[in-house]
Amino acid sequence: LPNKLPTIGTSIFTQMTQLAQQTGALNLSQGFPDFDSPPELLEALKSFASQGFQQYAPMQGLPALREQVALSIQQRYGWLPDVASEVAITPGATAAIFCVIQAVVQAGDEVIVFDPCYDSYDPATRLAGGVCIHVPLQADFCIDWQRFKDAISAKTRLVIINFPHNPSGAVISAQNLKTLYDIIEPYNILVLSDEVYEYLVFDGQPYASVLGLPELAARSFMIGSFGKTFHVTGWKTGYVVATPELMQAFLKVHQYVNFCGVTPIQHALATFMQQHPEHINQLAGFYQAKRDLFGQLLQPSAFKLLPSRGTYFQLLDYSAIRNDLDDVAMSQWLVHQHAIATIPISVFYEQPIQGQRLIRLCFAKTEATLQQAAQRLCQIA
Amino acid sequence: LPNKLPTIGTSIFTQMTQLAQQTGALNLSQGFPDFDSPPELLEALKSFASQGFQQYAPMQGLPALREQVALSIQQRYGWLPDVASEVAITPGATAAIFCVIQAVVQAGDEVIVFDPCYDSYDPATRLAGGVCIHVPLQADFCIDWQRFKDAISAKTRLVIINFPHNPSGAVISAQNLKTLYDIIEPYNILVLSDEVYEYLVFDGQPYASVLGLPELAARSFMIGSFGKTFHVTGWKTGYVVATPELMQAFLKVHQYVNFCGVTPIQHALATFMQQHPEHINQLAGFYQAKRDLFGQLLQPSAFKLLPSRGTYFQLLDYSAIRNDLDDVAMSQWLVHQHAIATIPISVFYEQPIQGQRLIRLCFAKTEATLQQAAQRLCQIA
Ligand SMILES: CSCCC(=O)C(=O)O
Ligand SMILES: CSCCC(=O)C(=O)O
Repeated sequence: LPNKLPTIGTSIFTQMTQLAQQTGALNLSQGFPDFDSPPELLEALKSFASQGFQQYAPMQGLPALREQVALSIQQRYGWLPDVASEVAITPGATAAIFCVIQAVVQAGDEVIVFDPCYDSYDPATRLAGGVCIHVPLQADFCIDWQRFKDAISAKTRLVIINFPHNPSGAVISAQNLKTLYDIIEPYNILVLSDEVYEYLVFDGQPYASVLGLPELAARSFMIGSFGKTFHVTGWKTGYVVATPELMQAFLKVHQYVNFCGVTPIQHALATFMQQHPEHINQLAGFYQAKRDLFGQLLQPSAFKLLPSRGTYFQLLDYSAIRNDLDDVAMSQWLVHQHAIATIPISVFYEQPIQGQRLIRLCFAKTEATLQQAAQRLCQIA
Repeated sequence: LPNKLPTIGTSIFTQMTQLAQQTGALNLSQGFPDFDSPPELLEALKSFASQGFQQYAPMQGLPALREQVALSIQQRYGWLPDVASEVAITPGATAAIFCVIQAVVQAGDEVIVFDPCYDSYDPATRLAGGVCIHVPLQADFCIDWQRFKDAISAKTRLVIINFPHNPSGAVISAQNLKTLYDIIEPYNILVLSDEVYEYLVFDGQPYASVLGLPELAARSFMIGSFGKTFHVTGWKTGYVVATPELMQAFLKVHQYVNFCGVTPIQHALATFMQQHPEHINQLAGFYQAKRDLFGQLLQPSAFKLLPSRGTYFQLLDYSAIRNDLDDVAMSQWLVHQHAIATIPISVFYEQPIQGQRLIRLCFAKTEATLQQAAQRLCQIA
């Protein structure tokens, strides 16, 4: 059997979540909430678990849900995407990312990604016959413009950005998006903007999306995640916004990869979004409070907290504790010796940075979990 | 924008369902039931629309659901697949098909498909960089062994079979599966067996699966569909059974295409299957009664019914009515003039057969719908 992805094993998220379950460790590794989903959203799912809502959804997604996406974009960026031609619902953001890459990358094409980055970009590119050019982010996890420019070649077809950024929590400004646009403008380069943490931006920073800059939006696929926004990662439902031309290329692939998403789930999301517009407006504050609590609780610890400006992730520098361990060894040590599962960030790099001593923790957890985790982490000297 | 699938438009299923909705026609085109889903299954979904079941499922699928799949296979074929290494849950059979093809097809590889065939096989193969070799089935929609042998080349990597067969309702015997195995045995050829209609086999025929022939199972991916078996096509949940080695290759792709399926949906299916083992045993009788009723009602019509030995599809020969129209024109005429949406079968062919006068109707419908449809069809002279 020829191996299409020879260097690929089981993803770190699956590994660490399994390890947490086996060892009974607190699971702060894979990104998902351990608290309740909105009760009204579950009520909505119950109400659509009824006759008449159990057959195929439209391939492009339920119109009512596409409309809610369009309205949320109008509210934030001042323009209303066309529900018929510019919005699609997918079975998860990962599927959306995969299909965008399949839709635009031809054999031999290059795709620029910024390390550390989500682990699906590179294998998805390889499966499309393309090659990922991995450009390291700066130490503050912002784009190094010179390195980005140097990475562009005649073969560059796509650049993938992800702000708010997993695993670091870095965000991007509108001005830097304009810089990105100015750099790619002369070329035939498209943008995949993975904005699954779009609502998780803290400290009152204005959120910058490719959709906020018309000239950049014109060559971008913007990807969002209902799972992350509504505390239901197990619903595996995401969306794509793109120009009609790009959307058509996307749908041609989506139609033969997944065909459509789950019908009652889409109805429930549309109903909840329509009835509870306050949810998305309160989300940043909700998660900022968790970040702040966790940060405060970790104050006495020997870990150094890096700034988390968005997402539900917090990077910890452990160099003062076990500088002898690389991050993979450190996360193993933490799960086995201190019953806390985390993510080593080297797995997000093509070329891990020698001497980097950072692990990622997910703070999408109850106060009780965060307290227990902080207690364990504070005991480590 | 380079077009990865230049010859592809919106699928016939989307087109015809939309046309049915726009014109108010009876929709017998896209394959889905218009009757109630099992109430206990919806109750199960309601009960899992509760706190604690809304985050990521395991990448390979919920163990309890994999176990139900394994047990159903043991019941039918006398051996129990290993739940840990030989069964996976996918967000739909279409996604499973796509990921199998991505997992095994390399650039330049050939994939043999039998026309007429489901419309995703060819684009999925092209996206993997492969080429589909389309081998026409015989007039009775069984495999023409000589043509199959002639199609095999040094580049053949995969053969895709689909019995019970969409769109014809043909089935395959265990003996013919053995013949298939004997033909591919000397080669390095794998089999994708699309068995989404596995339980819909009529007239007491024994059902033949690749899983019933150990030597064939050893090089096959078997794909099933909960949507079709449990009257919930909108749940988009399917499964794959394969040897540990093949499963590993599959999961590497699945993990970056979809990562996992929907959690509450998987719980609901596992619970229902465990509590209602009778459902799958009664399914063939349930659909056979619909086939027989529809056939009886169409007796007085000018359409000729071809045998439907499985699936929930019925082919009608309309040559006695409008031999002047090809099947695409006929289906347009039927939807606009007689308010019945059907599927022209030429769309399932790379090279449609000149003069073939067949349309496909889905009989997964209530008695009332079948009666109304038959009434309209009987009025056409
Ligand atoms: C699909 S599992 C990965 C979840 C996630 O986004 C993360 O933990 O980074
Ligand atoms: C995924 S839409 C197609 C449904 C189906 O299997 C058919 O109608 O043939």
